[in-house]
Amino acid sequence: MSKRLKVLISNDDGIHAQGINTLAEWLCKFYDVVIAAPDRERSAMGHAISLHKPLRVEEVTVPYPVEKAYAVTGTPSDCVKIALNAVLDFRPDIVVSGINHGPNLGNDVLYSGTVSAALEGIINGIPSVAISQMNGNEKFADFNASAEFLCNYLPKILEANLPPKTMLNINTPAVSTHEIAGVRITQLGHRMYSDTYEKRVDPRGGVYYWLAGEIVNTDDHEHSDVIALRNNCVSVTPIQFDLTNHTVLADEATLARLKHE
Amino acid sequence: MSKRLKVLISNDDGIHAQGINTLAEWLCKFYDVVIAAPDRERSAMGHAISLHKPLRVEEVTVPYPVEKAYAVTGTPSDCVKIALNAVLDFRPDIVVSGINHGPNLGNDVLYSGTVSAALEGIINGIPSVAISQMNGNEKFADFNASAEFLCNYLPKILEANLPPKTMLNINTPAVSTHEIAGVRITQLGHRMYSDTYEKRVDPRGGVYYWLAGEIVNTDDHEHSDVIALRNNCVSVTPIQFDLTNHTVLADEATLARLKHE
Repeated sequence: MSKRLKVLISNDDGIHAQGINTLAEWLCKFYDVVIAAPDRERSAMGHAISLHKPLRVEEVTVPYPVEKAYAVTGTPSDCVKIALNAVLDFRPDIVVSGINHGPNLGNDVLYSGTVSAALEGIINGIPSVAISQMNGNEKFADFNASAEFLCNYLPKILEANLPPKTMLNINTPAVSTHEIAGVRITQLGHRMYSDTYEKRVDPRGGVYYWLAGEIVNTDDHEHSDVIALRNNCVSVTPIQFDLTNHTVLADEATLARLKHE
Repeated sequence: MSKRLKVLISNDDGIHAQGINTLAEWLCKFYDVVIAAPDRERSAMGHAISLHKPLRVEEVTVPYPVEKAYAVTGTPSDCVKIALNAVLDFRPDIVVSGINHGPNLGNDVLYSGTVSAALEGIINGIPSVAISQMNGNEKFADFNASAEFLCNYLPKILEANLPPKTMLNINTPAVSTHEIAGVRITQLGHRMYSDTYEKRVDPRGGVYYWLAGEIVNTDDHEHSDVIALRNNCVSVTPIQFDLTNHTVLADEATLARLKHE
């Protein structure tokens, strides 16, 4: 009997979200699954970690046969970090974060808690993947196609033997399995937001603002994740956590301008 | 009379921190300065933004002649985003985030609120820089050398004409101006943490955890920011917010392994 792969799941929509539920349900069929996810929704957390408040980890019951499920009072990064370093007594073969309710495309990955949970896996030296579904509306999203895709694709991720510090960011279209038009290896596209703020006045006369940014421009090339999704394809983007701009470091003219005596 | 440059300052230690105070005090001498910073400490926030709660922006008084100073009830990213899109009636020439109390070196930049505030400037198309000082202890840190360096270096940053989506991450040693051994253009180094969690029990028997990670290994090459600081140099690292790993995308063998029929 072959040893089953060990999968650690997390997300940013919280341990009771539909996306992580469906993912866990599918992965359980083929793999040994442990969940460590936020006790409640933690979207747009970026790569935040909790330094100034302690974390609590509660074992919870979920309606499918995972090995263990832990609700953590922290950010997505906290969940993966504490699972790997304090809670689990084994090392998972892969970290999967998702399925996010809504896409994580282009620049949005910088703000994404879903991606940050997977980055934390990579930082700890474990192959990791984030998966998000275009349709963020729980009522209309069917996460089964996304979960089925990931189940089948997961061994490929491990065999891909990605370079260190590199994870995969996957987005799936909001269609059923037979409607997925293909899988594209992509680069992050450019989604620009208007970043407008709605100014309001509270009953006591105080001013407050809501972020109400709308997508105004997706100036994209044919290999971008944005375009892949627009064509009902799954996008698979290798992303890294080395932020150094090595192009600048190799450019003598810019280096000369930055020099300071 | 030459037009003075317009500088937007933010940070993650909060608008009343010593680091931002000293920075503003110095920049005011040469530039038109506006502050938009968190109303309180927001360290390790990563690139978080507030989607689910409104922001309040309060004009506050600070003890140096800035044009305006705004305290924002949000993250460092929120501060820069709302300043640029809702509060300011002009476009700053540069965004400066800091001076952070403590270094932002190597992988730490992923967690850094200081860096995320500057990234938000870049996302909005404005040249941006994050500056951090090695000594995080307010009592012992003298931010004057760091602030003086930035004042002098600022025109160079604008003249450097960096590629799009690229900012500078600066770290300064905790020494006085005449003890700074030089300025190095660097890449992000590798700081590894033990990421241990201290398990404790509250008076009611509940278990909670504190993150207590210590630096265990800085496996660094000679051009890293970590090594620059170790030699009492200022490190200037160009960092980008395009996370795509283009090396993987150019590698046919890996692409073949990732392919999915």
